[in-house]
Amino acid sequence: MPSPHATPDQGGPGSAGTSPDITTGTDADVPGGIPAGITAEQDAFRSALTTTIETFLQEQLAVLGAISDESVPLISSIATLTSGGKRMRALLCYWGWRAASGTPGAPAPVIAGTALEFFQAAALIHDDVIDRSDTRRGRPSVHRQFSARHADAGWHLDAERFGVSAAILAGDLCLAFSEELFDASSSDASCARAGRTSARAIFNRMRTEVMAGQYLDLLEEAVGPDQTPALAEERALNILRFKSAKYSIERPLMLGGALAGADRALLDAYSAFALPLGEAFQLRDDVLGVFGDPEVTGKPAGDDLREGKRTFLIARALRSSSKDSSTRINAMLGDTDLDAEAIASLRATIVASGALSHTEALIDRKSAEAFDALTRLPTDAISREALRRLAEAAVTRTA
Amino acid sequence: MPSPHATPDQGGPGSAGTSPDITTGTDADVPGGIPAGITAEQDAFRSALTTTIETFLQEQLAVLGAISDESVPLISSIATLTSGGKRMRALLCYWGWRAASGTPGAPAPVIAGTALEFFQAAALIHDDVIDRSDTRRGRPSVHRQFSARHADAGWHLDAERFGVSAAILAGDLCLAFSEELFDASSSDASCARAGRTSARAIFNRMRTEVMAGQYLDLLEEAVGPDQTPALAEERALNILRFKSAKYSIERPLMLGGALAGADRALLDAYSAFALPLGEAFQLRDDVLGVFGDPEVTGKPAGDDLREGKRTFLIARALRSSSKDSSTRINAMLGDTDLDAEAIASLRATIVASGALSHTEALIDRKSAEAFDALTRLPTDAISREALRRLAEAAVTRTA
Repeated sequence: MPSPHATPDQGGPGSAGTSPDITTGTDADVPGGIPAGITAEQDAFRSALTTTIETFLQEQLAVLGAISDESVPLISSIATLTSGGKRMRALLCYWGWRAASGTPGAPAPVIAGTALEFFQAAALIHDDVIDRSDTRRGRPSVHRQFSARHADAGWHLDAERFGVSAAILAGDLCLAFSEELFDASSSDASCARAGRTSARAIFNRMRTEVMAGQYLDLLEEAVGPDQTPALAEERALNILRFKSAKYSIERPLMLGGALAGADRALLDAYSAFALPLGEAFQLRDDVLGVFGDPEVTGKPAGDDLREGKRTFLIARALRSSSKDSSTRINAMLGDTDLDAEAIASLRATIVASGALSHTEALIDRKSAEAFDALTRLPTDAISREALRRLAEAAVTRTA
Repeated sequence: MPSPHATPDQGGPGSAGTSPDITTGTDADVPGGIPAGITAEQDAFRSALTTTIETFLQEQLAVLGAISDESVPLISSIATLTSGGKRMRALLCYWGWRAASGTPGAPAPVIAGTALEFFQAAALIHDDVIDRSDTRRGRPSVHRQFSARHADAGWHLDAERFGVSAAILAGDLCLAFSEELFDASSSDASCARAGRTSARAIFNRMRTEVMAGQYLDLLEEAVGPDQTPALAEERALNILRFKSAKYSIERPLMLGGALAGADRALLDAYSAFALPLGEAFQLRDDVLGVFGDPEVTGKPAGDDLREGKRTFLIARALRSSSKDSSTRINAMLGDTDLDAEAIASLRATIVASGALSHTEALIDRKSAEAFDALTRLPTDAISREALRRLAEAAVTRTA
């Protein structure tokens, strides 16, 4: 398994750019004498998650093998995405479970975490088709894997088209797997009976939000340059909320809580912490996508600028720049040939517009809101500390 | 709603060509004094199905509207596919329920039928992207709807790419809806508690089979011409089984039965009837795709030949033709410019090879096997008669 740092996610729902590892931190950091078992508990969860993923894929390998050995590459392609990654959503699901008095080490949050990992893998497979991305976590993207298979074998018709078609089917299969696993988690004996309905509602809503958010993101690329600056800023915040903040942080946490039987009041308390945290997390991502250090992020400097991402940071820069400057930003944005000098100049324009400091101030405000809500979260000290660490890493990260 | 006859399905899983309406037939046909309520019961089911689909889409419209009004076209695009169609899978689910002593008019098979309709809509949306089909049931396909929206509005970047990307997301959303509905059906109070687990297993397996079958179909286009004739025939039968026979006939029937609490023995009896029926159904489809009357099928004569479909009929013709003839078939197959004369000549070659009579004999054998199994199905007279009608229409149809 590649290290998360060495193989950052790029693009995709829940990540507008660089890919943090928000799961680091050791017990040495713990203030106030919290028991030192958080890291060990988290490691045990990760290990159970990996085992569940591998066992499930082995079972599916047998199902597909019984249909035809030739259909097995669908599973291999999915495995390239589920074997790595930061497990961020799964970990949030776990601590959402624990913070609602779920038993440590119970199966329900592990299986639900696996469902979240498969959902993310499906979203990445289709996202790479949509963005025509050639790589994902340092390996060929799934459609590229299939077109390479076609080209290597010297088959008939078009290799690229074969790759895209197969990737659409692989993503569909992966979505179905995610659902199959989610059902297994909420049917598991360790899941609170009272929580099944609300967990299902959260999972349903999460999927709809991500797909709607991704569509809005697509639309933004197409209609963005024609928006008034104020409207573009509002739209960027809305996309950030649904495509990333809710999906990557709020919903996984709520899902874990619901499976443990959390009531409405506790789930609302989760949201009060997780939604501003998710927004700060994504805003930090937007900043790193433009100003991040390539040595640390593992991505070329200013990658979001070349990709033409219309993030909140960019919308703000356009809004607070002179007409000349904003025309220049619009003209350069999305130019895949931008060199180091052009990137440096665009960065300077964004800084001069005040958009960077405005965004940093917004991150600070959202983070403060999240940490404040965390102190009020009615939970045990260990869960609160685990969540504090995840939150801390999410907003102060440099990669 | 367009009439099913006027707007046949084209391609897509579960349909290799023409699209029959297997749901016709009136009580006047009923032999032996079976109560005349089958048509009325079926009409009531269809009506409940339509209401459930419309209510669900209204609810989802509100969910997406709350995210952004701009995301609402995702729902409209799905609605273009779920508002029509023959409801064949839903009807099989219903009679599967009834034949296992399910209560007439209960909600569970209606909601499960809706889940099957949404699954089929999702498969068609993605299938049209894969096949680059411009139309579906006489209207623009979903990716065409979105690219037209882009072009009409004069948005930035590429309209076609926008259409494909949006259709991938719309199909994903529709898959999620299908799942959401399936969960609601198996959670409904009318679903037999004992049946929930087996219904879920059937639904899971069905999705995996369709996606694997579609991938094999894709692969067949790419590697087909290089196969030995005997192997190509075997491969065509395997694809037909998983992509169509199981998905379109066997699994919907079993699903309805499982929801009503059918035990393993009854479900096996369903399979003994439904799998050969599904194979006969698809073989009939293959024959109509080459020899169907355009006046009746609503599709151009020999459409499958122009599309280059490597069906069992074609594999058989290649296997039993002289080397010259099979070279000629391979060369003409998939040529979108084939004129009437060329179609007539290809048809003659297929007839001369004996492939048509061989396929018709296979349809007869599979049908006989299905009807024989039906007589042994341990069920009531009304359900048996309803299934007999559906089966009859499926294999003797001309469109």
